[in-house]
Amino acid sequence: MLSIEKYQNEFVAYLEECATIKEPKNLYEPINYILSLGGKRLRPILTLMTTDIFNGNYKNAMNAALSIEVFHNFSLVHDDIMDDAPLRRGKETVHEKWDVNTGILSGDAMLIMAYTLFENYEPKPFYELVKLFSKTALEVCEGQQYDVDFETRDDVTIPEYLKMIEYKTAVLVGAAMKMGAIVANASTEDQNSIYDFGKNLGAAFQLQDDYLDAFGDPTSFGKQVGGDIIENKKTYLYLKALEFLNETDKVELRQLFSSNPEDIATKIEVTKQFFVSSGSAEATKSAIEDYTNKAFLILESLNISEDKKELLKAFGNNLMNRTV
Amino acid sequence: MLSIEKYQNEFVAYLEECATIKEPKNLYEPINYILSLGGKRLRPILTLMTTDIFNGNYKNAMNAALSIEVFHNFSLVHDDIMDDAPLRRGKETVHEKWDVNTGILSGDAMLIMAYTLFENYEPKPFYELVKLFSKTALEVCEGQQYDVDFETRDDVTIPEYLKMIEYKTAVLVGAAMKMGAIVANASTEDQNSIYDFGKNLGAAFQLQDDYLDAFGDPTSFGKQVGGDIIENKKTYLYLKALEFLNETDKVELRQLFSSNPEDIATKIEVTKQFFVSSGSAEATKSAIEDYTNKAFLILESLNISEDKKELLKAFGNNLMNRTV
Repeated sequence: MLSIEKYQNEFVAYLEECATIKEPKNLYEPINYILSLGGKRLRPILTLMTTDIFNGNYKNAMNAALSIEVFHNFSLVHDDIMDDAPLRRGKETVHEKWDVNTGILSGDAMLIMAYTLFENYEPKPFYELVKLFSKTALEVCEGQQYDVDFETRDDVTIPEYLKMIEYKTAVLVGAAMKMGAIVANASTEDQNSIYDFGKNLGAAFQLQDDYLDAFGDPTSFGKQVGGDIIENKKTYLYLKALEFLNETDKVELRQLFSSNPEDIATKIEVTKQFFVSSGSAEATKSAIEDYTNKAFLILESLNISEDKKELLKAFGNNLMNRTV
Repeated sequence: MLSIEKYQNEFVAYLEECATIKEPKNLYEPINYILSLGGKRLRPILTLMTTDIFNGNYKNAMNAALSIEVFHNFSLVHDDIMDDAPLRRGKETVHEKWDVNTGILSGDAMLIMAYTLFENYEPKPFYELVKLFSKTALEVCEGQQYDVDFETRDDVTIPEYLKMIEYKTAVLVGAAMKMGAIVANASTEDQNSIYDFGKNLGAAFQLQDDYLDAFGDPTSFGKQVGGDIIENKKTYLYLKALEFLNETDKVELRQLFSSNPEDIATKIEVTKQFFVSSGSAEATKSAIEDYTNKAFLILESLNISEDKKELLKAFGNNLMNRTV
């Protein structure tokens, strides 16, 4: 087994090896650009690691890992257009650096390229990988649509929110790991368990993103702390606060979230106080713990050595203690 | 063998059968909308017919045919956003009826759904169908990018233009037919020949579209005659005219195509006169004939009965004598 860092380095080396500029340049340059912006490479690392864990050769999982990363970046390019976001990982988004049409078309090409990366596998694993990929990709689209729909609704429930993050974020983490298991030719039972492990870890990861957006350390968070509050995003923190607050405070929080005041700092401060005083901050932390524990419980059922279970657990704990 | 009309009717019946509205509605309603707008259903008909021609059961090709049609409509949804087109088949485009974000996301979902439709095939044909689909889909994106690039270039050559229409239009017709051959388990040789037949027919079809846009009968054409001229589109007619005209006329035609005059009727009339006087209209007609003849020559090499060759020829001739 390699260290996380070694998986990451090998993956990035492979990614760079694959990045040749083909014609037409205006289609392929934006693709190389977004893929080279970096990021944690969390999903592909999980694919490689999972193949290793199920006694496969992680090098055989490189194309599946790259497919997941290309797909993830496709979704970022199209999401950034929809959110009109100027920056991604501190750099210009594709539609800002080029234009919206380039973002749409290069994104489309990335989605297709993600599929072509499976062609290196034999017909049977190819079938399983592509089927899992399509199911997951469609769910990610559905999750994104729910996210868009929620912006204009003020009756979003907690179960609806959890379903949204499950589709938009968690299933891709589950699929990244299941692909590693497919490449390693693991049993169907193990494939499904590692998928569930990844999905629960992915949900915990997303809830923690929500939490850190409000309560992260500004010096290490990387993004602007309070970004979700500025954008009036109905996160778990917000929905739980509404559930717990009394009528008067509820009205005030709703009002805060229907305004775009000049004094952003005060809006963030008051909102965070509501998150804490209502008990929502604590509830969010315990939801993160619940998902993490659920993931760890699933680990128990896997047909792998205790060492490897500890490794996955360490990875999960590491992810959950992050500040970035 | 069925008649074209029967293939079409069975295909449309299958399409309607598959159109269930799932959640989230804002994602799936636009998909059903664009798929129900009609059109000639040329590509799926070719898939079904090709399976029949190679002695397969055309009903087994229904999902491949639907995949091709879903993909074709995906490309229309995204192209219409890029072209800022208000109408498609005389009805509102998806991004007009909903909004641009809906068009992007529903389009993405359609591209993925096109892949899922192959899941009904066994792993081996699945592998072949998906691989062909991805290659073709990527070429269609490249063709669209060339088309976008050509808008701001004034040195587009005829070979470049032909490559653009090959990628943007012709390969999908070839792939539609090859998929029918794959489903029928035809020999690799026959698969490749029918692909080339379809590709050449597709190129002829696109050149004829260019020709009809200027010289079609306004009462039967369906679209506004002269639409390409109004939009200063560098079609085969335009590029060939520039090749044939003397310097003075060339300057005048270029000037016409860099203006958006109020008197549209005169612009169209003068341009068409250039197309005729330069010999470009005739050259376009003969290019259409060349592609059609090339397609028919390929037919000769196919391992199918003379009857079936005649049928494909009749279909091609019918397509080439169309006025719509």
